[in-house]
Amino acid sequence: MKKEINRRVMLAGSAAAAASVAAGPVSAATPALRVDGERLRATLEGLSRFGRPEGGTFADGVSRTAYSDADIGGRAYAMGMMREAGLNPAIDPAGNIIGRRPGTDKAAKPIIIGSHIDSVRAGGNFDGDVGSMGALEVLRTLDDRKIKTRHPVELAIWSNEEGGTVGSTAFAGRLEPGALDNLYYGIKLREGLKRIGGDPERLAQAARPAGSIHAYLELHIEQGGILDREHVPIGVVDGIVCIDRYDVTITGFANHAGTTPMPGRRNALIAAARLIEAVDAIVKREPGRQVGTVGQLAVFPNAPNVIPGRVEMTVELRDLSADKVAALGQAVQARARDIALETGTEMKFHLTEHIEPALATPAIQAHIEAAAKTLGLPFIHLPSGAGHDAQLLAKLGPMGMIFVPSIAGISHSPKELSTWSDCANGANVLLHTLLAVDAAGV
Amino acid sequence: MKKEINRRVMLAGSAAAAASVAAGPVSAATPALRVDGERLRATLEGLSRFGRPEGGTFADGVSRTAYSDADIGGRAYAMGMMREAGLNPAIDPAGNIIGRRPGTDKAAKPIIIGSHIDSVRAGGNFDGDVGSMGALEVLRTLDDRKIKTRHPVELAIWSNEEGGTVGSTAFAGRLEPGALDNLYYGIKLREGLKRIGGDPERLAQAARPAGSIHAYLELHIEQGGILDREHVPIGVVDGIVCIDRYDVTITGFANHAGTTPMPGRRNALIAAARLIEAVDAIVKREPGRQVGTVGQLAVFPNAPNVIPGRVEMTVELRDLSADKVAALGQAVQARARDIALETGTEMKFHLTEHIEPALATPAIQAHIEAAAKTLGLPFIHLPSGAGHDAQLLAKLGPMGMIFVPSIAGISHSPKELSTWSDCANGANVLLHTLLAVDAAGV
Repeated sequence: MKKEINRRVMLAGSAAAAASVAAGPVSAATPALRVDGERLRATLEGLSRFGRPEGGTFADGVSRTAYSDADIGGRAYAMGMMREAGLNPAIDPAGNIIGRRPGTDKAAKPIIIGSHIDSVRAGGNFDGDVGSMGALEVLRTLDDRKIKTRHPVELAIWSNEEGGTVGSTAFAGRLEPGALDNLYYGIKLREGLKRIGGDPERLAQAARPAGSIHAYLELHIEQGGILDREHVPIGVVDGIVCIDRYDVTITGFANHAGTTPMPGRRNALIAAARLIEAVDAIVKREPGRQVGTVGQLAVFPNAPNVIPGRVEMTVELRDLSADKVAALGQAVQARARDIALETGTEMKFHLTEHIEPALATPAIQAHIEAAAKTLGLPFIHLPSGAGHDAQLLAKLGPMGMIFVPSIAGISHSPKELSTWSDCANGANVLLHTLLAVDAAGV
Repeated sequence: MKKEINRRVMLAGSAAAAASVAAGPVSAATPALRVDGERLRATLEGLSRFGRPEGGTFADGVSRTAYSDADIGGRAYAMGMMREAGLNPAIDPAGNIIGRRPGTDKAAKPIIIGSHIDSVRAGGNFDGDVGSMGALEVLRTLDDRKIKTRHPVELAIWSNEEGGTVGSTAFAGRLEPGALDNLYYGIKLREGLKRIGGDPERLAQAARPAGSIHAYLELHIEQGGILDREHVPIGVVDGIVCIDRYDVTITGFANHAGTTPMPGRRNALIAAARLIEAVDAIVKREPGRQVGTVGQLAVFPNAPNVIPGRVEMTVELRDLSADKVAALGQAVQARARDIALETGTEMKFHLTEHIEPALATPAIQAHIEAAAKTLGLPFIHLPSGAGHDAQLLAKLGPMGMIFVPSIAGISHSPKELSTWSDCANGANVLLHTLLAVDAAGV
């Protein structure tokens, strides 16, 4: 294999780079290699037109929810770009767009790079897009410099990430058939998949077996604002957090708000208020990066003059440690039992979602660190509090994620913003990590 | 006038009753006079068919929201009953059904008795119905016994009580013209009035001037459960409470619930939780019958994985004393300012409704007491925490209200229940109070 690598570097690198080839991995051999930041910007701006509010500008964000016309338009745009780049993109049965750049070793497993391009309703132009177009830019840069890799590199644009990482879940062979009947913005996933060129009948054929990939690398914006606040351009992701989500139903007794004396009330919203505060207090009472949120709440019957008889709410807990998440859930439920007694209400917890943490492969974290150092970019390690397609790909092989700053941590909002140089930095780290992972055994 | 009264009692009463005429008011002269409880029951059961859930029974309650087909059906039923009773019912421009039983004195102002027959969605068969059909039963009883009154007696069935005492407000000349564009269950009041035979163009003609009525008497179920808990069959209403209703908007900052660290959050729902508890605590911290409720609350964007950026909620405060209600509102707002500082949120209070207390006329309260004594029915005094058409009628002349027990204080529910004997007791008190008020100057 050495000969292959030498040839590649000779084609691509400067004399100085070529001189260092024997000493280290490929990325070290091509330290001056950079993506074209202006081209990346133009590609992102081009994509931003699909789902942009009418009459708006790039700054107005996008609504490119999966299966919408905007999604279909954005996907066609991405496939056009991939075709131009010689990647022969195709849509798999799960609606994922997958292109391929052959490697020199026909027996080598693929390295997959990519992200998603669907957005939340009224979302921004960076969440998913930076990783997808950044991955494309990396492959274009390799072509420009005629750099070959040993492993084939697949560029994947996963379908419907925002609606529950649908495409990558199917790719990992973990989409329950029943999920196809779930609705997303009024469309059954089954119908949505057909709209974007997938084939729900052949869904199982989208799945790749565990161990079938050399590595998965994903570049993404950091949605917590930590990089922005600490003025660090690169985040090396330790892993993607565990999520436990509970539906909580609190049952009291609805009654007339004018005529029912205060002492006898069984007010479900008073109980809910105490539980909301308890979640916050329990999560904050020990150090760490764990988070807990009541984000959704509905009051019944929800009239100004009726004492709330029922409240339905969610409690969501996240941490890189599944044990910590479980312990927080237990503590919240213990407190809930007391609140129910205090308020004369009944509280039922139902765990509706449990997502195991996905730890990033340490060797890939080390390659990302090395790439950042090569590029002279400061970095820190941090967990991803958000879910990503990478957590599914981690089921199939080694996984790593690179974060770039999102200003003030704003995301899922038209105000979501990363600087063009942050985007280019991220793509450069992806480029150098890819080359290192390609050269290394991982 | 004495001669008139004598003649009336002679026609109606027993020899014993006739003997006592000179000594007291008419009701004292006819202590044995009673409504027909079985007929009242049959009338209420007849009314209950309009808006009953399909395939249900009386116990399943009604949905007879104003302007619905069920309301139109119930109103036609009531008008038929009134027509049979010789009351010549007509619909005024505000949709109120008004029938009239002439008095002996053509110059005398009318006494109005009545209530409403519209219900909340999924309501019961007693709220409003007992007072409306009870008033009809009183007039039928007078007819049966051929008792004439000096004052004409009008039987009023007020339109759309549950949607904001629309009919009685217009009758008191206080319905803002703009209110006609308000929606009630998707129907503009303007259209709703037309559906039930009102005439929004001539609304002003529904108004009666202040001082134009001799008295207004309303029988109603007590919706707080006090009479039921204390096993007292009759409540003499001191007055109808003052209501201040605020819309509160809490603005924080919506962000990703997974990626946003706990310390920097500006969670509008945490602030709302503290305010909900503060309303409860502030209202409870002094003795009295004041009540305070957060009954309506909406979270934005309301997703399990997004920190709430905005909460809109109502705060409603009630007491017989407007000063106390205002002071409670000030205390809640003072606490809200602290909560806003604690949570990094902004809180805006907007007083959307201020209903002045309507005190029941002391002389009428005394007549109700006397009637209960005549009938051997224990009574207590209590305020009405609920609003009623009576509070509008109080603008036009002396007002009194009679309460009967509602089991466990349940109302605005299919489970709302009063016993048939409680209903008959209430109608009997209304009957004797009417006769006393007719005889007295009030």
